[in-house]
Amino acid sequence: MPDSSRLITLLTDFGLEDHFVGVMKGVIAGIAPRARVVDITHEVQPFQVGQARYLLGESWRYFPARTIHVVVVDPGVGSERRGLLVEAGGQVFIGPDNGVLSDVLALPKAKVRELANRKLWLAKVSATFHGRDVFAPVAAHLAAGVTPAKAGKLITDARRLPVPAPVRTGKRFWTGEVLHVDRFGNLITNLAAAEFPELGRRRVVLKVGYELIEGLSPSYASAAPGAVVAVLGSGGTIEIAINQGRADRKLGVGAGSPVDLELV
Amino acid sequence: MPDSSRLITLLTDFGLEDHFVGVMKGVIAGIAPRARVVDITHEVQPFQVGQARYLLGESWRYFPARTIHVVVVDPGVGSERRGLLVEAGGQVFIGPDNGVLSDVLALPKAKVRELANRKLWLAKVSATFHGRDVFAPVAAHLAAGVTPAKAGKLITDARRLPVPAPVRTGKRFWTGEVLHVDRFGNLITNLAAAEFPELGRRRVVLKVGYELIEGLSPSYASAAPGAVVAVLGSGGTIEIAINQGRADRKLGVGAGSPVDLELV
Amino acid sequence: MPDSSRLITLLTDFGLEDHFVGVMKGVIAGIAPRARVVDITHEVQPFQVGQARYLLGESWRYFPARTIHVVVVDPGVGSERRGLLVEAGGQVFIGPDNGVLSDVLALPKAKVRELANRKLWLAKVSATFHGRDVFAPVAAHLAAGVTPAKAGKLITDARRLPVPAPVRTGKRFWTGEVLHVDRFGNLITNLAAAEFPELGRRRVVLKVGYELIEGLSPSYASAAPGAVVAVLGSGGTIEIAINQGRADRKLGVGAGSPVDLELV
Repeated sequence: MPDSSRLITLLTDFGLEDHFVGVMKGVIAGIAPRARVVDITHEVQPFQVGQARYLLGESWRYFPARTIHVVVVDPGVGSERRGLLVEAGGQVFIGPDNGVLSDVLALPKAKVRELANRKLWLAKVSATFHGRDVFAPVAAHLAAGVTPAKAGKLITDARRLPVPAPVRTGKRFWTGEVLHVDRFGNLITNLAAAEFPELGRRRVVLKVGYELIEGLSPSYASAAPGAVVAVLGSGGTIEIAINQGRADRKLGVGAGSPVDLELV
Repeated sequence: MPDSSRLITLLTDFGLEDHFVGVMKGVIAGIAPRARVVDITHEVQPFQVGQARYLLGESWRYFPARTIHVVVVDPGVGSERRGLLVEAGGQVFIGPDNGVLSDVLALPKAKVRELANRKLWLAKVSATFHGRDVFAPVAAHLAAGVTPAKAGKLITDARRLPVPAPVRTGKRFWTGEVLHVDRFGNLITNLAAAEFPELGRRRVVLKVGYELIEGLSPSYASAAPGAVVAVLGSGGTIEIAINQGRADRKLGVGAGSPVDLELV
Repeated sequence: MPDSSRLITLLTDFGLEDHFVGVMKGVIAGIAPRARVVDITHEVQPFQVGQARYLLGESWRYFPARTIHVVVVDPGVGSERRGLLVEAGGQVFIGPDNGVLSDVLALPKAKVRELANRKLWLAKVSATFHGRDVFAPVAAHLAAGVTPAKAGKLITDARRLPVPAPVRTGKRFWTGEVLHVDRFGNLITNLAAAEFPELGRRRVVLKVGYELIEGLSPSYASAAPGAVVAVLGSGGTIEIAINQGRADRKLGVGAGSPVDLELV
């Protein structure tokens, strides 16, 4: 039984100023009229595959089972790079084979296919807009009841991006990095609470840029407005923020900047 | 009978560049698969509670009865500030207790509850993202048929922001202010036509910045391109605009700037 | 039989920072609760009717039959300019009579009506927001089963914008122009492959700004990162791009800039 009201999410670097996203939704509506589409974001910086990987990783678990996620950050569009369909975590992920799906490729029992069945694509495929011509129609056909197996054969060599992990630099020292700067200027690090069970028991000292931050705060607002705080962020990692201000600007750091952690 | 296709609106300062808004919609879809979500805006300036209050006030009356509005501009997230559920005007409003719901709190017979029933929240509540963990799930449970009374007990001390009202400064003089600058640079004032029944009969003189404007124009386009005009705006208040230009930049004024009104 | 789940698209210059788009959706939901709304874009530059015309032209064919497109780029709002309803190409188009619907007005058998039936508008029509008060409610009534004929009488004098076409400047020379700069900085020209069947057989030389480009490339990525390429774009016209860069900035050109084509 096709569950024709399935959810399709879109995550792209297309921006919202052109017709690109709207047209993808038109294509979906033509194939799967009852599918529901949710935008995760379209404001990934152009061609920033790693940023899209991060945003997908923070998002997909909050969607219902069988959601179909379409991720199009695709500088290689029109070249020989493959398109992928990944079944993992009870959901489906569609996008180019450039590492943007790295996180879900690493999930247990991930099944990976190369998009090859042109019957699920638009009749005419352009060299510059596979979001419209390939990825959206494949997602819509899935929402309308086509099985993933119809999209193409299983492969095992999908491309994965190296995902930055914290490095231990001493008995009680680690160096992580800023993974993402959010719209508020908060610095989201890769220092995950789950990896540091001592966080609750030992004193935390963080160093980022020229700033030294002692202790985790229970909330942004537990510091005075303008003060730098470290909090446990919504993705489960340490986040450096300024209460009602922008940490990225005040500290002069951004994605990729190192963050030193000491557990005293 | 739960009306499972109820409308939920979102009004936040989350921006569209992160995954925040998409994830809220994922959470809603998991709890209330048939609820329909409409974005009012996510581009409230970070932490600008008063701006969100204004935008909600301009919007909610245009939505159908029983719409559930979720407003998340929440610098106090994770602190002791309460979450609210307000029933007023035949609709429902959910958001932090920081004044963002002031306008609807002032409606006749508004019923106000403190969000307290953790069964309606996500199992794990972060310190930084109650939009995802508290407000969206409560809204979704309501859309799925849970009654407001289940969310928490009635309270009477919800926080209200002072809302700027025009001040009479002479027999025929008032001073209002610019409430909002819209995307076109139009200056939306708090000088409401309903408060000045003489507007149609007496000559209007407005002063804003160094600009003197005589008379209300029937439309932006009734002046030459580039000319400053005052019109009766879509929210029922006087608006100062430049035909095909930006009044905020030309006049050098913004939200909070005074606007003098004389009825000659 | 009213097809109450019909699709309505919105294409405006309203931006996303105000409540304008959300309120239009609230009005639609009140009249046609089952209609589905898709945003094409709201980031048309303020008052840029020609840009909206282009974006609509690139979009509507990708939507299902009977989709209702609402286009509001409307510097003349509140003046005597008319509102239009156009039936063409199996779809419906609603917007101001300022040329924004030029492309669909030119379709074979286009039926054009002047919006005149105030019963399909909101009871109170402002002078500044016909998107909310006129265009959205008319679209919603159509989605709910009202026939186009109810909206107003047929007219034949709707306003059309001149649409720039390439000019032949020599035996093997043409001069076209940049129609649109997309979010990636790609320069979309009006040099349509369909008009130049020799494109595949003869050598192409393009000149834009100070840049000379020889040959069409199969994809952006077929050149080195940073190199200028010409490709056949997703709208079927020649597009000038920089692999992983911005052609508009590097070449210093924008919409309206001339592009010379030589077929050697």
